[in-house]
Amino acid sequence: MTRLLESYAAGRWFTSTAEGDPLLDASTGEEVARISSTGLDLGAMAHHARSVGGPAIRALTFHERALLLKELATHLTGLKDELYELSLRTGATRRDSMIDIDGGFGTVFSYSSKSRRELPNDVVVCDGDLEQLGRTGVFMGQHVYTSRPGVAVQINAFNFPVWGMLEKLAPAFVAGLPSLVKPASQTAYLTELVVRRIIESGILPEGSLQLLSGSAGDLLDHLGVQDSVAFTGSAHTAGILRQHPSVLHGGVQLQVEADSLNCSVLGPDVAPGDPEWDLFVKGVVTEMTAKAGQKCTAIRRVVVPSAVADEMTEAIRTRLASITVGHPDDESVRMGPLASLGQRQEVRKAVEALRSSCDVVLDEVEVTGDDGRGAFMSPVLLRARAGAVEPHDVEPFGPVSTVMTYDSLDEAMALAARGKGSLVGSVVTHDPGVARALVLGLAPWHGRILVLDRDDAPESTGHGSPLPMLVHGGPGRAGGGEELGGVRGVLHHMQRSAIQASPDMLTAITGRWTRGSQRTVTPEHPFRHSLATLAVGDTIVSEPRAISREDIDHFSDFTGDTFYAHTDPEAAAQNPLFGGIVAHGYLIVSMAAGLFVDPAPGPVLANFGVDNLRFLTPVKAGDAIRVTLTVKQITPRSSADYGEVRWDALVVNGDDEPVATYDVLTLVAKEAP
Amino acid sequence: MTRLLESYAAGRWFTSTAEGDPLLDASTGEEVARISSTGLDLGAMAHHARSVGGPAIRALTFHERALLLKELATHLTGLKDELYELSLRTGATRRDSMIDIDGGFGTVFSYSSKSRRELPNDVVVCDGDLEQLGRTGVFMGQHVYTSRPGVAVQINAFNFPVWGMLEKLAPAFVAGLPSLVKPASQTAYLTELVVRRIIESGILPEGSLQLLSGSAGDLLDHLGVQDSVAFTGSAHTAGILRQHPSVLHGGVQLQVEADSLNCSVLGPDVAPGDPEWDLFVKGVVTEMTAKAGQKCTAIRRVVVPSAVADEMTEAIRTRLASITVGHPDDESVRMGPLASLGQRQEVRKAVEALRSSCDVVLDEVEVTGDDGRGAFMSPVLLRARAGAVEPHDVEPFGPVSTVMTYDSLDEAMALAARGKGSLVGSVVTHDPGVARALVLGLAPWHGRILVLDRDDAPESTGHGSPLPMLVHGGPGRAGGGEELGGVRGVLHHMQRSAIQASPDMLTAITGRWTRGSQRTVTPEHPFRHSLATLAVGDTIVSEPRAISREDIDHFSDFTGDTFYAHTDPEAAAQNPLFGGIVAHGYLIVSMAAGLFVDPAPGPVLANFGVDNLRFLTPVKAGDAIRVTLTVKQITPRSSADYGEVRWDALVVNGDDEPVATYDVLTLVAKEAP
Repeated sequence: MTRLLESYAAGRWFTSTAEGDPLLDASTGEEVARISSTGLDLGAMAHHARSVGGPAIRALTFHERALLLKELATHLTGLKDELYELSLRTGATRRDSMIDIDGGFGTVFSYSSKSRRELPNDVVVCDGDLEQLGRTGVFMGQHVYTSRPGVAVQINAFNFPVWGMLEKLAPAFVAGLPSLVKPASQTAYLTELVVRRIIESGILPEGSLQLLSGSAGDLLDHLGVQDSVAFTGSAHTAGILRQHPSVLHGGVQLQVEADSLNCSVLGPDVAPGDPEWDLFVKGVVTEMTAKAGQKCTAIRRVVVPSAVADEMTEAIRTRLASITVGHPDDESVRMGPLASLGQRQEVRKAVEALRSSCDVVLDEVEVTGDDGRGAFMSPVLLRARAGAVEPHDVEPFGPVSTVMTYDSLDEAMALAARGKGSLVGSVVTHDPGVARALVLGLAPWHGRILVLDRDDAPESTGHGSPLPMLVHGGPGRAGGGEELGGVRGVLHHMQRSAIQASPDMLTAITGRWTRGSQRTVTPEHPFRHSLATLAVGDTIVSEPRAISREDIDHFSDFTGDTFYAHTDPEAAAQNPLFGGIVAHGYLIVSMAAGLFVDPAPGPVLANFGVDNLRFLTPVKAGDAIRVTLTVKQITPRSSADYGEVRWDALVVNGDDEPVATYDVLTLVAKEAP
Repeated sequence: MTRLLESYAAGRWFTSTAEGDPLLDASTGEEVARISSTGLDLGAMAHHARSVGGPAIRALTFHERALLLKELATHLTGLKDELYELSLRTGATRRDSMIDIDGGFGTVFSYSSKSRRELPNDVVVCDGDLEQLGRTGVFMGQHVYTSRPGVAVQINAFNFPVWGMLEKLAPAFVAGLPSLVKPASQTAYLTELVVRRIIESGILPEGSLQLLSGSAGDLLDHLGVQDSVAFTGSAHTAGILRQHPSVLHGGVQLQVEADSLNCSVLGPDVAPGDPEWDLFVKGVVTEMTAKAGQKCTAIRRVVVPSAVADEMTEAIRTRLASITVGHPDDESVRMGPLASLGQRQEVRKAVEALRSSCDVVLDEVEVTGDDGRGAFMSPVLLRARAGAVEPHDVEPFGPVSTVMTYDSLDEAMALAARGKGSLVGSVVTHDPGVARALVLGLAPWHGRILVLDRDDAPESTGHGSPLPMLVHGGPGRAGGGEELGGVRGVLHHMQRSAIQASPDMLTAITGRWTRGSQRTVTPEHPFRHSLATLAVGDTIVSEPRAISREDIDHFSDFTGDTFYAHTDPEAAAQNPLFGGIVAHGYLIVSMAAGLFVDPAPGPVLANFGVDNLRFLTPVKAGDAIRVTLTVKQITPRSSADYGEVRWDALVVNGDDEPVATYDVLTLVAKEAP
């Protein structure tokens, strides 16, 4: 008897006392392992996550969490060979494994770098601009995201045992949530191996990752308001989860990614011989055969103009007929078996249902090396008859696609919409007008749309690949959920709240200086302070400087910026906004820098940018300007000896009216040189 | 018999043939109107919204929709008197009516102005930054929001018959969605009057607003993937909606705002005599009595330090005892009746349940002018006994609050969390440390948190008031939904999709120039073009200009920006980023303006700002810079004779390396002068 897969629960590896169900090699039918969760205390796992894992993660800043993810992905990359080896048994070809394994690690790397680039080095995220809620500015609003003190339960599908886990784990971890991973049984042995290596590495804090091998049992009964369930799988199971009392009445947040009858639409502008013609054929065949079509993002509906339908169908058939199907350890094999005999049975049933309104174009590609125990099947290309209903409702989770035709763009969009919501659609066209019309028509029905043409093809990652920086999910039948999308995927795990308070309180709560709150004029110029001593609110108020007409004239001559508002008194007088000669905006910010800068070498290394510069009141000759510069936000870089300091700059005139506001961005050393 | 309320359905007013159920005046028990939806074709209403209303709204840009909302709110403001008059019959005092009626109009005005300020004058919203998906930039990603071709069904609560409708209608309308409004029967006569005035005005396109007076019948059976239901009401009804097949399996998006046991926490720093002490007392009493406590945001749980609990309870009791309860047409009355005798019955039942673990502090405030038929009741103040469970689970939807005590901040947070998710919490403290600890602990459980102290009190709108610019909603028991929040509330009604395409295709799809896409160098300088002829992509490429050491020296002298990196060769050589004298960033953008500007008077009125300026490569003496300026986005202002033009600015050096990138913001006339 093979080994019983273990669960990693509440800080230790757990082996069920039950015999377990056998998991079979997809190609040979040999038993790979057995699985059971009988005897596992699921309530204790949820409690461990909340009481040990969550606090440990949330003791770290977003950047610190992100750095651990980078370390983890680097570590796992060194262990790839054994994962590829085991992945073979799921029926995955080397290319399929790449999507799953390297794709999973890539997602973790991406979350690590994006989180450090786009989130503060803190535990609270400010969302959107400050809102002034009253007339004088003593009552302000700021939306923030905070971490939930709960557990992220992740119920994954069988098709991507590595990527499926990591694409959910990475954003949850950055968000401060411990993960409780339940892989689909069929391929759980690969997930178990990855989790084992992660736990052995000791890189993630204890409790931040637990593994449930086997049935989810009464897990949902143990979840509450701060917990979430992210489910990828069938619409049927999703429907059961949606009716669980914890979801209906207990406040558990359920995120679903389910069935999807994705379409690819060929533009009416594309003719045989065009680069887009071949891209379309290749795209359809790739999506049918990669992972043997067991991808929720695969193309199920091939939507082509009636005029070229026969020719296109034949082109796809020809290319498909040349595919080698067989055992994935054979390097010439392009498509492996389905995950199991049961899965093949499901797909065959779906094909039967489709045949009631579709004709078979191809279903007899030869399989090499099958001894009768593997879950092999030929790709199946179908052609929908007029008025066919089934292709819009039946999802064959295997190498099956149906060609259907349209006569107008409106009809193409109506066909796409009949999928009732999909994860991804693609539009293959080189006509910008066609692209705009189809994309805007398709977008409300899709989480992602690929527009493929000769221009982006060299770098296109294809119809079926979710990317970590883009959202993955879709409305309606696709489950209504949304994952990934860079930092969006992190924020989905956090609670957004509107905070109403005085500016001083908002500064205390967010750790970011809020307009209107106290400024601390430091005895020493704040440019003399390294990050070790610089504090939010530290301020310099400059001396005033008068701007003369000579200054304006001189700046015009020197820079060449002779715009009439700075040079021609009569024309400037006609300008509805100025009514006379005004100083250049760039003159004002240049002079302001002269007023606030502290010239000698010190911890401030560079001014690398300016944000949100707005000119509010024109400055005329004779006006005196003064600048106040205040530390707004400090972001130490975890992997450098400096960090970013964002300064609030306010330039006022002699009447204390605001002339210009902006953020000055500088790099500042962590320690005094 | 009184009048039967009508429904506005599929373009005409519909009167049921049924007799209808009577709706009674809250104070007198007299019949105000009758209500029935028997005979109404709900499927036809949904179809009318989708086929007539939706397309008409979506033919307008966001700004055009927003302007109609402004016109509508202005029109309704002129009709306020008759609304106030009718509002009396719901039991609302003048102050209660102000919250409902003026609050509703204010929300519409706010959506009008925020949408014009923060959304493009277009039909697609770009979300977040462009994502480069490949190495060379030919394959890019951009998230967009598009309008759903569906209907927004809005099922409202009885307590705010005007605001409740308008706060849902306004964001849906801006999002491009027609609304189908179903008010709670009890106060539907007021909603019906407002809808009647809106329809009469002809301001909104036909089909953008329909009214369902009476039972919702089989409405949900007629909804699909692109439709949404926004429900405000009881957790019980929410649970029924969640189990409807259209929600479980049909992809209908359900947004719930339900029960909420909101808390107000007094900080341990506050002592009797402090301004915050009185603010706390006043806040609790106001929330108990406004709308007779029939607000989902009212304070149900009063959380105070044990040490001051007796004194605080007495302070609240004293203030509460002085409240005048009676018929709202009496101007001395501070609190009117509940909405109906049935509602009072519910509240009395809840108070009974609370008494099992709470002691009554006050429940006998005298009611003036009750002839026995009105739904009057005294405010009820309770004090929880140790270990009380009911105050955290039972929501008395009336003038009832329970005082409970804590000994540590952790205990205060644990008490707050026992509400299992609330719409709003408040923290009354003048200690920034207490504020930060409590707010960060409470935030995951709340949609909104008010921090009240002496500083923001002068402008504070109080614990119970949702504001249009801040999100309204909460996790868990509060329903898990989110409304309002300015533009967030609009985007909730739209579908976010990731678009992957070449830069040129993204420009065509979004209407915004995308980095890497084609630039059109126009024969005439683009500053010569008004909005009538200017096009996205129009470009000027400047001549090069060499920057000399003299230029740098001179700029230092002139502006006073003598930072060592521009002035001291030896010190500059030590700078890890520069390794020698470099030109000032402000010198570069000033020179760049000199290179791209076209000086003569013309349609370009002003440069009012700069966004996202980043300095990428240092410029040293002898380097020549060149600037390319391209029209990125054109936003005509609907209510002015000019608009905003955002230009992409790219400064490169002699090796074509990017030196600086930024957006230049200008105001440009719609027509040539």
